[in-house]
Amino acid sequence: MTEDRAERHRARMARRKARVDADIAAAAQDKGLLLVLTGPGKGKSSSAFGMLARALGHGHKVSVVQFIKGRSDTGEEAFFRRQPGVDWQVCGAGFTWETQDREQDIAAARAGWAAAACALADPTVNLVVLDELTYLFSYGYLDLATVLADLAARPPMQHVVVTGRAAPQALIDAADTVSDIGDLKHAFRAGVRAQPGIDW
Amino acid sequence: MTEDRAERHRARMARRKARVDADIAAAAQDKGLLLVLTGPGKGKSSSAFGMLARALGHGHKVSVVQFIKGRSDTGEEAFFRRQPGVDWQVCGAGFTWETQDREQDIAAARAGWAAAACALADPTVNLVVLDELTYLFSYGYLDLATVLADLAARPPMQHVVVTGRAAPQALIDAADTVSDIGDLKHAFRAGVRAQPGIDW
Repeated sequence: MTEDRAERHRARMARRKARVDADIAAAAQDKGLLLVLTGPGKGKSSSAFGMLARALGHGHKVSVVQFIKGRSDTGEEAFFRRQPGVDWQVCGAGFTWETQDREQDIAAARAGWAAAACALADPTVNLVVLDELTYLFSYGYLDLATVLADLAARPPMQHVVVTGRAAPQALIDAADTVSDIGDLKHAFRAGVRAQPGIDW
Repeated sequence: MTEDRAERHRARMARRKARVDADIAAAAQDKGLLLVLTGPGKGKSSSAFGMLARALGHGHKVSVVQFIKGRSDTGEEAFFRRQPGVDWQVCGAGFTWETQDREQDIAAARAGWAAAACALADPTVNLVVLDELTYLFSYGYLDLATVLADLAARPPMQHVVVTGRAAPQALIDAADTVSDIGDLKHAFRAGVRAQPGIDW
């Protein structure tokens, strides 16, 4: 009886493995990917930072531009700044309701894109993270066509991860992988403030 | 005219800041969070690894148990194993269609939970990542009630991140924050294989 079950399991999994292996064999291309992590749920920036760690584990060179920055004491910044192979730039003085200064926000956005464009033009950079970039399109602080052109002209094997809510459709169209992170539940709504190590 | 626009922006953002500040003031509690990252999209494990980096940036002690492990050469494992404050355990020999051995998979799942239970009982561990745990419930390899009891009994300030598709409802009910990662687009379906630094 138990042997029967084990054998049925083995046979079912062998069929499944054949299907999975065929799918894997069909995907043989290597390519610099444009990934977009959007949606209201928790996990957009943290996923980008996880990919940074992965890339560093392969000895890759990475570049990060943070476009909106609510605080200067984040765990991710402290941690990654001390790793070799990381260039980390903060361009932004917080959310637009914190600065309340449209001209200053636009200047920070443009400085941020200048830094991003440098990374996107450097073939030695394997991964570029553009953290919270999408908000700049929502506010009209950056020209989407310019951004898409710079992304399209980057080195062919360079990966780029863009995070932020409400990614514009043209960015989604240009991307290779897009995750839309739904917010089923968030501790903040239950009265828990942002926790170090989790939220910042 | 431009000054007008700047002033309207300032006033609108000041009202928004008042609302945001009120929400933040209402969330004053500190708590060890249970986070679940589920759904078919890219970003579940990478988000957990990003939170690891955040936690390490705050000098926290972290513990990772990987329950399903397709390969032994991942960037995340290479990177985090060389960081101080990280305990990293791999319990699993790959997806069940790779091993094709139900008894071996169940033994690995139980060994994994024993390792997890140790971390969950240790008040010096600030963050526990249970990577790809949910699959073990889908396959019936672990008892959900035992897992929920161990999670509930952990130190009150300890954070836990669980990843994997199709999280069971009872786990979602027990969680503080749940993100459901939708797969809008994935490079794999366009013929691109898993890329180092992004997917592993």
